[in-house]
Amino acid sequence: MSLQSDLETPAVTVDIDIMEDNIRRVQAHLSAHGIANRPHIKTHKIPALGKLQMQAGAVGITCQKLGEVEVFADAGVADDVLLTFNILGAAKTERLMALSRRLKRLAVVLDNEAVAKGLSQAAVQHGGDVRFLIECDTGMGRNGVQTPQAALDLARSAIKLPHMQFEGLMTFPTRYPGSHAFFEEALALFKRAGIAVPVVSGGGTPAIFGVEQFPMLTEHRAGTYLFNDVMTVASGTATWDNCAMRVRATVVSRPTDTRAVIDCGTKVLTSDLYTVTGYGHVVEYPDAVIPHLSEEHGVIDLSKCAERPAVGDIVHVIPNHCCVVSNMVDEIVGVRGGRVEQVWTVAARGAVR
Amino acid sequence: MSLQSDLETPAVTVDIDIMEDNIRRVQAHLSAHGIANRPHIKTHKIPALGKLQMQAGAVGITCQKLGEVEVFADAGVADDVLLTFNILGAAKTERLMALSRRLKRLAVVLDNEAVAKGLSQAAVQHGGDVRFLIECDTGMGRNGVQTPQAALDLARSAIKLPHMQFEGLMTFPTRYPGSHAFFEEALALFKRAGIAVPVVSGGGTPAIFGVEQFPMLTEHRAGTYLFNDVMTVASGTATWDNCAMRVRATVVSRPTDTRAVIDCGTKVLTSDLYTVTGYGHVVEYPDAVIPHLSEEHGVIDLSKCAERPAVGDIVHVIPNHCCVVSNMVDEIVGVRGGRVEQVWTVAARGAVR
Repeated sequence: MSLQSDLETPAVTVDIDIMEDNIRRVQAHLSAHGIANRPHIKTHKIPALGKLQMQAGAVGITCQKLGEVEVFADAGVADDVLLTFNILGAAKTERLMALSRRLKRLAVVLDNEAVAKGLSQAAVQHGGDVRFLIECDTGMGRNGVQTPQAALDLARSAIKLPHMQFEGLMTFPTRYPGSHAFFEEALALFKRAGIAVPVVSGGGTPAIFGVEQFPMLTEHRAGTYLFNDVMTVASGTATWDNCAMRVRATVVSRPTDTRAVIDCGTKVLTSDLYTVTGYGHVVEYPDAVIPHLSEEHGVIDLSKCAERPAVGDIVHVIPNHCCVVSNMVDEIVGVRGGRVEQVWTVAARGAVR
Repeated sequence: MSLQSDLETPAVTVDIDIMEDNIRRVQAHLSAHGIANRPHIKTHKIPALGKLQMQAGAVGITCQKLGEVEVFADAGVADDVLLTFNILGAAKTERLMALSRRLKRLAVVLDNEAVAKGLSQAAVQHGGDVRFLIECDTGMGRNGVQTPQAALDLARSAIKLPHMQFEGLMTFPTRYPGSHAFFEEALALFKRAGIAVPVVSGGGTPAIFGVEQFPMLTEHRAGTYLFNDVMTVASGTATWDNCAMRVRATVVSRPTDTRAVIDCGTKVLTSDLYTVTGYGHVVEYPDAVIPHLSEEHGVIDLSKCAERPAVGDIVHVIPNHCCVVSNMVDEIVGVRGGRVEQVWTVAARGAVR
């Protein structure tokens, strides 16, 4: 077994102890609140990590692309999968129906009639039923019906289509009070209409430790909690000690007294900034800021650092957004106690469709 | 041969006619100014496209990572390669020396003594010489010596090390007046010191059509010009008609009158924003803006569009930064006249080290 200190840079590493603790803690919290855990595998795209989440008590997994479902079905990770994306077009709906036959339960979301009709046609053509949830836009401003009444109207019209089984409501992310108010009103409308809503699915890592605010949820979907990152720390959901993913890098240049440059840029760390300052947190130099990334360079501002690295020194960067960093590399290195324990292939990395 | 209109989405496509025209135009311009063209292959990471650039008159290629040099050497793209990154550490310098034996000329840049010493030691240990250029920071604020005098001092000390062959000066990007003033002063210093500077290497796509401002340049390194993107259009270097790369996507949702959502987000288009507004240019709806990307969703604001797409419609997005988009997918589809002519594997995609 090789040493972590022998790893060539840049390398994306995951501290297995921290990751296992994250899996345990989140599973225990959701279980304590009676909410099913359906982790989103887009964060890691690694079947072995999905299996760890299942073994810890997850009821199933969430995928964002058909290609992810295919990779994870091939690996036998879970027989209960929710695909949280509108699937349309003959080729994709055929792939969905083929997957549906292989899994005990494959559900999919939809937010418009065109998608509902396409799914129903595929079910008629290829056999089998489509289990669907209505995606609700409860504040994100992305996909989703805009009002509780629109959710009911769409459910009603989709239920009338052949081979379509309504299973519930879904949103991303769960936010208070928007998601709460939307779901409460929608559930009252569905009750009055006599339509059962077996599943109410919320999502997002920042919402995990506030699930008690949403008594209507039956399940929660989160991805980032497995590794954590600058964004989950900024949201108060995690501490630096909960961050399992670190990008190992070498200081290749010290052009000025206050500037260091490392051998990784956007092609590993990505340009994801969201609301945070800088492109990652440098573990060894917590007062450092990464103001600029090129594709293969990371520029570090050391102005506020008392100690400063030399050319050849190794640093570890906690990325802003772990879910996109996994997607940049072919392999993630699992480390424990300074040793390399696992090298995982990011199996669903290329699954863009 | 299949039709472009049959391509599943999202797909990264390159219009071969436009790309060939870009290759011809840039090569002709640099040749007309007597400046050698050394295209940067990080933009495409595809050996077949590097070969097209060589056939059009390039003197060699530029790579940013050892892994890229290895992939392109294996494919026999060029026997003259410049690696524009500080290479350090025993494993990497050994790989460099191995590559050096396989290529007619492999040059590398350096900007500090630690890197120079490591390269010299590797050359002594493994045999062969290291051809090097001094990287100069002429305004980018990334790697590079900070002054012309520092360039001379570093060249002098590196030349004294065993097996080190000084070849010249390099910067990125070439900008007026900073790069001009730096090189002019540096060349005067080197001349006074009696040190020949055979190569003066500039770079960047926006600088291509201004190379006449830099009479000291012997070669130019640019990558983006091959495909072009929103940034090169914003810089005035290209028009939309020169943009060969388009991300083909499907409208999967129309949640509101002014909002469309497509099936590609940061995991294809990336979060690269730089100085432009929005995350890409929608060819069919030029007044549309992409204000937000999630990992797999692209949110389009149609407020300013008279015509608006329906669910299921296809759109093509010119990305902000083509060099990072190639890196997100396993394959790029070459199209010509509405037909799929080539499917290229992005061979150096995983070459992060």
